[in-house]
Amino acid sequence: VVGNPECWVSGVATLERAGPDDLAFLTNVKYRAVAETTRAGAVLVGPGAALAGRDLLEAPEPYLALAEILGMFEPPRVLRPGVSPAAHLGREVHLGAEVVVGPYAVLGDRVFLADRSVVEAGCVLGDGCAVGEGTTLRPRVVLYPGTRVGARCLIHSGVVLGSDGFGFATSGGKHRKVPQLGRVVVEDDVEIGANSTVDRGTLGDTIIGRGTKLDNLVMVAHGVEIGSDSLLVAQSGIAGSARLGARVTIAGQAGVAGHLTIGEGAVVAAKSAVFEDLPPDAFVAGIPAIEHRAWKKSSVAHRRLPEVLAELRSLRERVEALEKSARRSET
Amino acid sequence: VVGNPECWVSGVATLERAGPDDLAFLTNVKYRAVAETTRAGAVLVGPGAALAGRDLLEAPEPYLALAEILGMFEPPRVLRPGVSPAAHLGREVHLGAEVVVGPYAVLGDRVFLADRSVVEAGCVLGDGCAVGEGTTLRPRVVLYPGTRVGARCLIHSGVVLGSDGFGFATSGGKHRKVPQLGRVVVEDDVEIGANSTVDRGTLGDTIIGRGTKLDNLVMVAHGVEIGSDSLLVAQSGIAGSARLGARVTIAGQAGVAGHLTIGEGAVVAAKSAVFEDLPPDAFVAGIPAIEHRAWKKSSVAHRRLPEVLAELRSLRERVEALEKSARRSET
Amino acid sequence: VVGNPECWVSGVATLERAGPDDLAFLTNVKYRAVAETTRAGAVLVGPGAALAGRDLLEAPEPYLALAEILGMFEPPRVLRPGVSPAAHLGREVHLGAEVVVGPYAVLGDRVFLADRSVVEAGCVLGDGCAVGEGTTLRPRVVLYPGTRVGARCLIHSGVVLGSDGFGFATSGGKHRKVPQLGRVVVEDDVEIGANSTVDRGTLGDTIIGRGTKLDNLVMVAHGVEIGSDSLLVAQSGIAGSARLGARVTIAGQAGVAGHLTIGEGAVVAAKSAVFEDLPPDAFVAGIPAIEHRAWKKSSVAHRRLPEVLAELRSLRERVEALEKSARRSET
Repeated sequence: VVGNPECWVSGVATLERAGPDDLAFLTNVKYRAVAETTRAGAVLVGPGAALAGRDLLEAPEPYLALAEILGMFEPPRVLRPGVSPAAHLGREVHLGAEVVVGPYAVLGDRVFLADRSVVEAGCVLGDGCAVGEGTTLRPRVVLYPGTRVGARCLIHSGVVLGSDGFGFATSGGKHRKVPQLGRVVVEDDVEIGANSTVDRGTLGDTIIGRGTKLDNLVMVAHGVEIGSDSLLVAQSGIAGSARLGARVTIAGQAGVAGHLTIGEGAVVAAKSAVFEDLPPDAFVAGIPAIEHRAWKKSSVAHRRLPEVLAELRSLRERVEALEKSARRSET
Repeated sequence: VVGNPECWVSGVATLERAGPDDLAFLTNVKYRAVAETTRAGAVLVGPGAALAGRDLLEAPEPYLALAEILGMFEPPRVLRPGVSPAAHLGREVHLGAEVVVGPYAVLGDRVFLADRSVVEAGCVLGDGCAVGEGTTLRPRVVLYPGTRVGARCLIHSGVVLGSDGFGFATSGGKHRKVPQLGRVVVEDDVEIGANSTVDRGTLGDTIIGRGTKLDNLVMVAHGVEIGSDSLLVAQSGIAGSARLGARVTIAGQAGVAGHLTIGEGAVVAAKSAVFEDLPPDAFVAGIPAIEHRAWKKSSVAHRRLPEVLAELRSLRERVEALEKSARRSET
Repeated sequence: VVGNPECWVSGVATLERAGPDDLAFLTNVKYRAVAETTRAGAVLVGPGAALAGRDLLEAPEPYLALAEILGMFEPPRVLRPGVSPAAHLGREVHLGAEVVVGPYAVLGDRVFLADRSVVEAGCVLGDGCAVGEGTTLRPRVVLYPGTRVGARCLIHSGVVLGSDGFGFATSGGKHRKVPQLGRVVVEDDVEIGANSTVDRGTLGDTIIGRGTKLDNLVMVAHGVEIGSDSLLVAQSGIAGSARLGARVTIAGQAGVAGHLTIGEGAVVAAKSAVFEDLPPDAFVAGIPAIEHRAWKKSSVAHRRLPEVLAELRSLRERVEALEKSARRSET
């Protein structure tokens, strides 16, 4: 605490909206000017963020501290355990302790729901699916048969796991479907955003590694394997059989081509397309993606292309003039 | 009316398919050649579109006129008011006059449905959601708890409003979830296309302004605020905390990075990525997006890059030859 | 068969995971090294893939052969014909022989289900929809009223067919909705991936041609016509009224602008954006898309742009020096 240790707050709010009873937070330097004029009673900041005359809560990792503090203010979700009478269960369904199954949910044969798992309204789980302990499927998630979701996962509405991979053998201009016999395996502590899709493997499994987070409208194709603690931002896509290491970041609207290997810790900038393997800790951008620093230089140069053409034309003329005069002086 | 004022039509059709009893329309110059050979009985055109020998209906804004005319031909949707016995209602649900709730819809506790609102089959509305007067949710829309949708909105199938923002505090390579406590607020007269997603704010609300239209598969991240009468075309995405003014157009597959301010009336061309604030009425394109006219010039120049390299090589050789001969003549 | 004609296998697996009882397959040269060390009992290969000391099954089109072989290993889907008592049917619904309608499916008035069609759990079919013989709608598909799906189609979960096109007449900064009165017509043998969306036409129909395959999260706008046997890879989008010929390929995250004509057999590379008509068999890439070979050259040149600028500066200085010395020698 920097400032008054007796300062009390009863809520958390953004810098713009906070009042004297709120704790606001400055976790992005961009908002420093706003922080200087906020009406907040106190501000959560990182190390050394000297905001004159303010009561501050300084944390070594302020965004992490915010996560903890917000957890205290999160209203508890009260879900009465039990299976809705308006749910539809197949044969040999395993229901763990304190599971919740919402209205109009459909569980196929041999579905396994571990203890404290939650299947909300309108979800459809095909035969043989398994949902791990404490995992929640928000309304209208579909798991195709055989899909496995680990413990403590959060799967948002509209997500489809286990749909067929886009595999066709083309012969004589016709596309024959290649049966997709693999599964989708989602490991523990994974979050998947609304309306994202993960296809089942052709033979092996499509794997989303432990602790990995997918944003909304993300596409993971058949046979992809994603390591642990990776981040796939909204509308990004990973083509078939690509392998992503641990702690990879794929920013928004970026794509990774099929059959590539992306080293652990690699970062792909927004809107980029990766067409080659990436070593660990690579940071790339562009279409095709190249090393980020080189991309930045090329992007700046790109804007100057019209100048370059003009300059080139002028140089050509000047060189021609020099050549002519040189020939003259030789003769 | 240009031509025969007694000309009668009984339907509307495209230029290609119209017959003698149909009104066709020419609202895009690209189809002028087709308009000259159409079998249509009459053609709706803009000012001064001289189509020789044709009966024309000339309107100052022909596309607007088409909207009005098509409204006359639209078959009325007959929905019997009432709540399906196969819907599932929580406690303290407010049902306005003449509301429609379809089969297998789920309304949580304290849901408010204003007069003449329609919740079609399979929708799921979390606790405390509110739907404005005359608004329609097509089948299988999900509203997370606390979501507010204004009056006269049209929300298409598969839309998810209020899912968690993609907020994680990363520490030691692990991603800790930042609770998402804000809401989604959709103002009046908004349309949202199929399978689009709008995330709730971390603390403040994500706001879709009055009269704004979102196409299909659009992603609006947490804490974004979009002004009135904006257009977000299919597969575009707006990253967290960005602020878009009124009458902004984000064309198809374009993206706006987080925490940016996009001035009112700005236009972002298809497939572009905006990484900097934009002033009002900006028109930008490219990755990163730059002023559209400059982008166009650079794009043309881009195609000539291989030539540029060749030219540069040739100039270098010629300059070297000149330098050599200059040195010779000096000695 | 190359090698031991008595070799028996009882399963199919990837090169990496296959054991002595499995047939593995080498259909992508990239995995040749893996094929040399696989533990597989036999390997399916293309012509002339000499893998020393291995029992091989050689096929002229190995991926096609794989499709056939996997078909033998695909577990049969056992669906008991019949309409779930927990489905909701409108008036005058036609149920063909051996149809399957899952729980919580909703069929509007005058819906037509041809023989052996399958409508899985939670699907919603609006009034007047028709589903062809042997077609399957996986769980939670929505067909807006009037949508027609042909025979032997496979429509994956979350797909929305027939939602309103994004048509607005803008006048005085306000967007007035243009009624969307056309339909979506999906011809025979089409597959549509999870969470993809196809909008109805404004007046004419949006048409997905026979044998065409759409991957996940694909967007097809109003009035688009796609020829037969085309492929639209994940997250690609086709803007309004575009016409695609037969056997077109739109790779992942690519886009086609509105009102364009794409000739048959054309290929658009991943992440590209087409802004001009394409002749048959074109192969294009880039934003805007240009001929693929030219794009590749320009991309290589693009990386050298910073060099180009440096080189240009150096040449300018050298030319200036030459000019100065030329002037000196003249005087």
